[in-house]
Amino acid sequence: MNNFDFQNPTRILFGEGTLAKLGQEAAAYGSKVLLMYGGGSIKRTGLYDNVTAQLRERGIEVFEVGGVEPNPRLSTVRKAIEISRANGVQFILAVGGGSAIDAAKAVAIGVPYEGDVWDFFVQKAQAKSALPLGTVLTLSATGTEMNGNTVITNWEENLKKGYGSLHAYPKFSILDPTLTYTVPADQTMNGTVDMMTHVFEQYFSLTPDTPLQERMCESVLQTVIENAESALANPEDYVARANLMLCGTYALNGGFISVGMRGDWASHGIEHEVSGIYDIPHGTGLAIIYPNWMKYVYRERIERFAQYAVRVWKVNPDGKTDEEVALAGIQATRDFFTRIGAPSKLSEVGVGDEKIDVMAAEAVRFGPIGSFKKLNKDDVAEIYRMSL
Amino acid sequence: MNNFDFQNPTRILFGEGTLAKLGQEAAAYGSKVLLMYGGGSIKRTGLYDNVTAQLRERGIEVFEVGGVEPNPRLSTVRKAIEISRANGVQFILAVGGGSAIDAAKAVAIGVPYEGDVWDFFVQKAQAKSALPLGTVLTLSATGTEMNGNTVITNWEENLKKGYGSLHAYPKFSILDPTLTYTVPADQTMNGTVDMMTHVFEQYFSLTPDTPLQERMCESVLQTVIENAESALANPEDYVARANLMLCGTYALNGGFISVGMRGDWASHGIEHEVSGIYDIPHGTGLAIIYPNWMKYVYRERIERFAQYAVRVWKVNPDGKTDEEVALAGIQATRDFFTRIGAPSKLSEVGVGDEKIDVMAAEAVRFGPIGSFKKLNKDDVAEIYRMSL
Repeated sequence: MNNFDFQNPTRILFGEGTLAKLGQEAAAYGSKVLLMYGGGSIKRTGLYDNVTAQLRERGIEVFEVGGVEPNPRLSTVRKAIEISRANGVQFILAVGGGSAIDAAKAVAIGVPYEGDVWDFFVQKAQAKSALPLGTVLTLSATGTEMNGNTVITNWEENLKKGYGSLHAYPKFSILDPTLTYTVPADQTMNGTVDMMTHVFEQYFSLTPDTPLQERMCESVLQTVIENAESALANPEDYVARANLMLCGTYALNGGFISVGMRGDWASHGIEHEVSGIYDIPHGTGLAIIYPNWMKYVYRERIERFAQYAVRVWKVNPDGKTDEEVALAGIQATRDFFTRIGAPSKLSEVGVGDEKIDVMAAEAVRFGPIGSFKKLNKDDVAEIYRMSL
Repeated sequence: MNNFDFQNPTRILFGEGTLAKLGQEAAAYGSKVLLMYGGGSIKRTGLYDNVTAQLRERGIEVFEVGGVEPNPRLSTVRKAIEISRANGVQFILAVGGGSAIDAAKAVAIGVPYEGDVWDFFVQKAQAKSALPLGTVLTLSATGTEMNGNTVITNWEENLKKGYGSLHAYPKFSILDPTLTYTVPADQTMNGTVDMMTHVFEQYFSLTPDTPLQERMCESVLQTVIENAESALANPEDYVARANLMLCGTYALNGGFISVGMRGDWASHGIEHEVSGIYDIPHGTGLAIIYPNWMKYVYRERIERFAQYAVRVWKVNPDGKTDEEVALAGIQATRDFFTRIGAPSKLSEVGVGDEKIDVMAAEAVRFGPIGSFKKLNKDDVAEIYRMSL
């Protein structure tokens, strides 16, 4: 186990009906709020009306920035910062999935900063403070509701960049699983893949002597696997939706399940290049690429992959080599992604081989990626080719 | 899964060498610190000198209250509050195990409170603020380093009471496993039993639909079991000490591993009566009583006990009834406690049947205890008799 420095101050209000606590929680942070949300779904479902009514009942003045993009844009963040400053906003409230929350985090750290918020994302500055931020989660996927990370896209410069800060942790997040009942099947699938790959990135690690962390990662994976198909078959299955929501949060909550382990994160970089060019959902890209990354790298630590196969997928190791067990676990991963409706090849989502070179070069722009196995341009290109 | 409200703001600095960060971390909270510690061990090991040198190097003025008792006393807490107020102390630092830290928590919430600190423990007041608190942990056991609970004994009134508050969470805790190298075998054993029973109290629950939480509890238990004997056989086994330290913290860190589950906690009450009268270590009492509580209650949810046996102890369920599997798991628990050096009968530690009635009556003074199975006086007396 490596040394580590861990802190996660976010408060979680979890369960059916917790949405009703929003007004009271928000009121503790001020009388002027900026409400951020994505597309129109929160208006169709009545969530928008519920949220704004609760805020107004508490005498809170509501400013808003809706239409936050699936890959939230720097231009939207800058606009929201301007609105916040011009109106003396004291509190940011995100209602939605990862995009609305990530954008709101950038606004929260951007408002008190005297320079341009993009400085944080290109390592020119560190956040020293933030406006308080609350969230109402409507999609189980990214874990952003309980961590300090945000990913923003700068379209003028064609850059998608992440930033993490203790100041960007939400003060509170309301996790009401019934708010995910209306999430369509493809988004449930993408969210499921997203949370599983978040765990993979932490779990497939070369760090020695991390038995508790490995088991916590396996716990999340097993629970996701048990519940995803139920949520797809019956979108209003409370137990399945609640378990998925908790798993999405635990999968990436500042590293609580993987303290002292070095993560890999190469696959996320490899996928970002694809979804950046072809505009496919991040979860879909990961479902295609991740099992191929696994096949490409598993020999670096076969016993971890064998352990994964046995503990998570219940592969029977009797009479098999470690390598056979490991490969059976990778195949089980692919089969599961297929079962929940994910494509398995880039060709299925309209991606050909024409840009492999460009994407591979971009993925390693700042040097080799990954820590489980360091990947250079040729390695990344090969993983793209395996995924065609 | 029940609804829940979770927050744990404590920062953890974990690993060999992290002690060297103490001065810097403490300096962020003020220039006058109250240092609290227990018996003489931190002076023998040089830890006291290291800590005070780091504080003084940073220009921090150090006041101190040493000799905090194994069951920390209200009188000690009151004295420390007086010293803090008289000297304008800004920060409390506990160096030690659960006792020093619990006492320091009471001081931290007591200093800014205008009444008597005991008010918190008898539900006459709620903490509204606290002095910041830091800890340096020297014993893997209670989890107090990452939660908001404190247990204090009022000898004048013969009462041992607990209190929990978000304000009592340490700002930071330094967890350097090498500081536990000198912990003697009996304390390592007691700490191991303590952390395992903390998990048991959460895991043996009637709350339905908690698959992730159950697995996280099992993860902690399996990891403790794998590492305790190594730590006993070789007290300077870094990996074993580090894993135990992490498990002790995760076993009771504000409920992170058991969010949305109702805990039981009857056994802790049953044990408190014994250790209150006979002055045996809490872990020792739990090792004797807990497996008997298990035998007394397992029929309330046999399948949870069977799951425990299979997943934690690898009991082979083939050809066995659920009840046989459950009982095999309970026996495995007893056998493990014996292997790490714990007694299995009250008679081994000088406790006879003469006070069973008194202890049972006291345990249920405020009504039946436990939630897995509600226990009245007769039930508690029977568990004592099973433990003789």
